[in-house]
Amino acid sequence: MRIDIITVLPELIESPFQASILKRAVEKGIVEVHLHDLRKYGLNKYNQIDDYQYGGGAGMVMMIEPIDKMIAKLKADRDYDEVIYMTPDGETLNQGIANQLSMKGNIIILCGHYKGVDQRVRDLLVTREISIGDYVLSGGELGAAVLCDAIIRLIPGVISDETSALTDSFQDGLLAPPVYTRPAEYKGSSVPEILLSGNLPKIDKWREDQAYARTKNRRPDLLTDH
Amino acid sequence: MRIDIITVLPELIESPFQASILKRAVEKGIVEVHLHDLRKYGLNKYNQIDDYQYGGGAGMVMMIEPIDKMIAKLKADRDYDEVIYMTPDGETLNQGIANQLSMKGNIIILCGHYKGVDQRVRDLLVTREISIGDYVLSGGELGAAVLCDAIIRLIPGVISDETSALTDSFQDGLLAPPVYTRPAEYKGSSVPEILLSGNLPKIDKWREDQAYARTKNRRPDLLTDH
Repeated sequence: MRIDIITVLPELIESPFQASILKRAVEKGIVEVHLHDLRKYGLNKYNQIDDYQYGGGAGMVMMIEPIDKMIAKLKADRDYDEVIYMTPDGETLNQGIANQLSMKGNIIILCGHYKGVDQRVRDLLVTREISIGDYVLSGGELGAAVLCDAIIRLIPGVISDETSALTDSFQDGLLAPPVYTRPAEYKGSSVPEILLSGNLPKIDKWREDQAYARTKNRRPDLLTDH
Repeated sequence: MRIDIITVLPELIESPFQASILKRAVEKGIVEVHLHDLRKYGLNKYNQIDDYQYGGGAGMVMMIEPIDKMIAKLKADRDYDEVIYMTPDGETLNQGIANQLSMKGNIIILCGHYKGVDQRVRDLLVTREISIGDYVLSGGELGAAVLCDAIIRLIPGVISDETSALTDSFQDGLLAPPVYTRPAEYKGSSVPEILLSGNLPKIDKWREDQAYARTKNRRPDLLTDH
């Protein structure tokens, strides 16, 4: 899989790709991530990439021309399955979308900044609009990093113990059950006895019950969706 | 405002705090963000911070003792309004929660990693659990960065043009209307004429209608919630 991220602030998301699972996925050759500075395609001698909004109002808008040129350059070199625009009014990311995108070949992720991109970018160049949640961020960069993390960790071979990802929250429509590790007692607070019993079928049953109870308590909407 | 982030991978989220709005907020002295490496409080000569789960199963669990010691150290120096644990089964972040947290004084954000933290950390030390969305990430670090961005940009003085944040998506319960900037025509695609008219009351009305139509089309749930 190859991911090309277009941004005016590549330095903002350098570190997430240089640590942990994303770094290992890149080093293993499972995924390529390229950060592209949109200013390379900026206009005039100032490498301008944004301008005032038509109709007035606070906040700058990213112009279509630099984005169009950058995407055209990438598309000249290879085909892309999706050109994704990160925006709070896009479709809300969930585990199902992450699973689906983890099977794509090449994708472009466009990060908005300031007041977002000219609407014509969305109408003409973007194939999919994704939001990571119902809140506003100062740009699409962190959203892009979140999307990459959610996708990349699902690609076979990235997480060393694949069964771990399969027991995460949402993969089976339930929240994950509580987990405990040593010590068995800490300042008077103990691990549930069942987990120390060694009785695996009973432990599995307890975990299922806990996962269901937690979901019913915290996120009953997940149960009615299924 | 002061934010203390506890993580096993501080290097993963260094760059978001060294760029753009978060950097400026720190430089202006409006917010302090401190990244703490949990391994400083790790056990034994390996600075161990995680161990196998009780009851068996894939994935390591972060132990309570290093986290307890780290939080105790921070609390010895000042009071905290919240100890927030980033977890996919927490309450889902939205703009209302971001607004509310932007008015706090000192907060601790605890990032889980691997299979998460020992349940006793959540029962005994954490005051609030927040999820940035219904998907699983390889750790809480990107979630913490997203939460900080969502909060910090709302603090007065951080964004230079404050009216810009007020017209963002979600602040009035609606998605933002489309925006356009120069050129007025690009490869045959034109800006809506109304935006070039100079008639501000009509432009305001058009934007309201567009915001409502986009919300009704993309996120009807936002309209029924209000």
